Amino acid sequence: MQIIAIDAMGGDYGSAPIIEGTLQALNEREFKALLVGKKDVISSQVPLKFKDSIEIIEADDVIEMTDAATDALKRKESSIYKAVELVRNKQANAVVSAGHSGATMSLATLRIGRIKGVSRPAIATLMPTATSGKYSLVLDVGANVDSKALHLFEFGVMGEAYVRDVLGISYPKVGLLSNGEETSKGNEITKEAYKMLKNLPSFVGNIEGNNIFDGSVDVVVCDGFVGNILLKTSEGVADSISKIIKKNVRKSPLAITGAILMRKVFKILKKQVDYAEYGGAPLMGINGCAIISHGKSNAKAVKNAIFQAINFSNSNINKDIEEILKELKDDISSQKE
Amino acid sequence: MQIIAIDAMGGDYGSAPIIEGTLQALNEREFKALLVGKKDVISSQVPLKFKDSIEIIEADDVIEMTDAATDALKRKESSIYKAVELVRNKQANAVVSAGHSGATMSLATLRIGRIKGVSRPAIATLMPTATSGKYSLVLDVGANVDSKALHLFEFGVMGEAYVRDVLGISYPKVGLLSNGEETSKGNEITKEAYKMLKNLPSFVGNIEGNNIFDGSVDVVVCDGFVGNILLKTSEGVADSISKIIKKNVRKSPLAITGAILMRKVFKILKKQVDYAEYGGAPLMGINGCAIISHGKSNAKAVKNAIFQAINFSNSNINKDIEEILKELKDDISSQKE
Repeated sequence: MQIIAIDAMGGDYGSAPIIEGTLQALNEREFKALLVGKKDVISSQVPLKFKDSIEIIEADDVIEMTDAATDALKRKESSIYKAVELVRNKQANAVVSAGHSGATMSLATLRIGRIKGVSRPAIATLMPTATSGKYSLVLDVGANVDSKALHLFEFGVMGEAYVRDVLGISYPKVGLLSNGEETSKGNEITKEAYKMLKNLPSFVGNIEGNNIFDGSVDVVVCDGFVGNILLKTSEGVADSISKIIKKNVRKSPLAITGAILMRKVFKILKKQVDYAEYGGAPLMGINGCAIISHGKSNAKAVKNAIFQAINFSNSNINKDIEEILKELKDDISSQKE
Repeated sequence: MQIIAIDAMGGDYGSAPIIEGTLQALNEREFKALLVGKKDVISSQVPLKFKDSIEIIEADDVIEMTDAATDALKRKESSIYKAVELVRNKQANAVVSAGHSGATMSLATLRIGRIKGVSRPAIATLMPTATSGKYSLVLDVGANVDSKALHLFEFGVMGEAYVRDVLGISYPKVGLLSNGEETSKGNEITKEAYKMLKNLPSFVGNIEGNNIFDGSVDVVVCDGFVGNILLKTSEGVADSISKIIKKNVRKSPLAITGAILMRKVFKILKKQVDYAEYGGAPLMGINGCAIISHGKSNAKAVKNAIFQAINFSNSNINKDIEEILKELKDDISSQKE
């Protein structure tokens, strides 16, 4: 049975959605939850019937969103520090946090450590596509800027392992995000990464921004600077379309009636693009499992992040990443000789 | 009166939409059109009443979309080569082409030459925002990969000059696209560019991907690799949303009725995000004016691209760019001393 450490204090809406999400997860699947945070705040929210499956770990400090990530290492009484330590000390298999993502990332990287062969951990996020239930995993979306070619190559290996081992896609396709599909396209770094990624059987070559959403690949490899921009750009476009529709619907009673009749369709659309449906963003490349959730996570998002952590921990992903990286790096260096 | 050279043969749909767009433009504004291409193909499409405002320039070769951009310099009988030469030889003020954009870009850069102080020309494109009639100008969107900080700085100066001199925005705001708003965010190149851009009074600092569409800035500065990806990503998101809506509407007669009642709203949305409404993408930084239009341009897009060329040529933009760059570069180098 997996043991999941959950930072009960992080998140924009306090402990309520985190604890509610944990209870929902426990109603659906079997695992042990370690809720880390202020005991008096947490215990009142946990019904008696969960007393065997939930343990509360006291932590009386909270890293706020406005705090510097660099402080995280010093504040050893914080909920996220203690939650990460549980994984480091093998008292938990995974940590889930909707708190300060920079703090989670640096603590997980420095305290839990990297998988052998991984130069830099990367944050991976699932993006919805036009096909219901089909996602593409984009990494890195913000852990690293100024990635080198080797880092992009490692992101490709880690992303492939995630969609195969955790999401169960038997023959994943990995694409390298570029400014055109032709081999000649790219910047200096992606062109070099292209040559290394060719050693990965699942690599399909360069892809363009629109391919993230058309289901042509399962994994999208990019630098964290680019990944962050494409994430925010996508949000911006979707928001903007929604605003234009709403504003213009309000102007006409006919359109209002139309929107009411289309309500079910808009609901499906909303569900299909809702991050709460798939949970959080795994931090790939650490010697354990850390799921970074959106600060605005509701109970459903927390529940799904916990499920991600369980699926991740049930899989053989970290061992696979280590082995594949070793094998491919041997291949690459023998090609150079 | 402005003289506009128009590549009549480029574009995915042949000469028809190009010539039709030219005629529409002539019906609305006064200028001289030089249609460059196969005389026998063009002349049959030009009604007699336009004989004073249109001149046909014979060119019997066409650079196809599948041809290499590097061939463009050698094929001196091609319509785009001859159209660019008209600007080089001061027989035209501007060139408009919906043909091979790489060919247009390299010919315009190499044959017309760069403005003094400009290291690299950039392609600028207008992106729609949630507010009707408000756009943000993004540059570079593909002319350059691996831009240096100095290039990004120059893009900022050129973009500002365009929205002020050509679009008539008196107090433009220029933002640098980054992975966060804080000054500490960015990659090596954008952090260095930030320091230089601070010398531009209209510079508002780092912006994020979603700010492209919320109207918070008029100019978005980025490297061409990033610009291309954000353009394609935006298209991908919009396409994907439209597909999800259409697919689910079809499943329910109620939703179909709703969609019919909302038709006007969808029409407004479509118009607001339609590139044909604003024309093409100016190639900024050359000693003249070149408007690069979408290969799929319809007559309206061609008409608006011609209007862009006229407005550009009526303005003082290139002189302004030269002067502002000189002034600011003097400031920057005196700061370094």
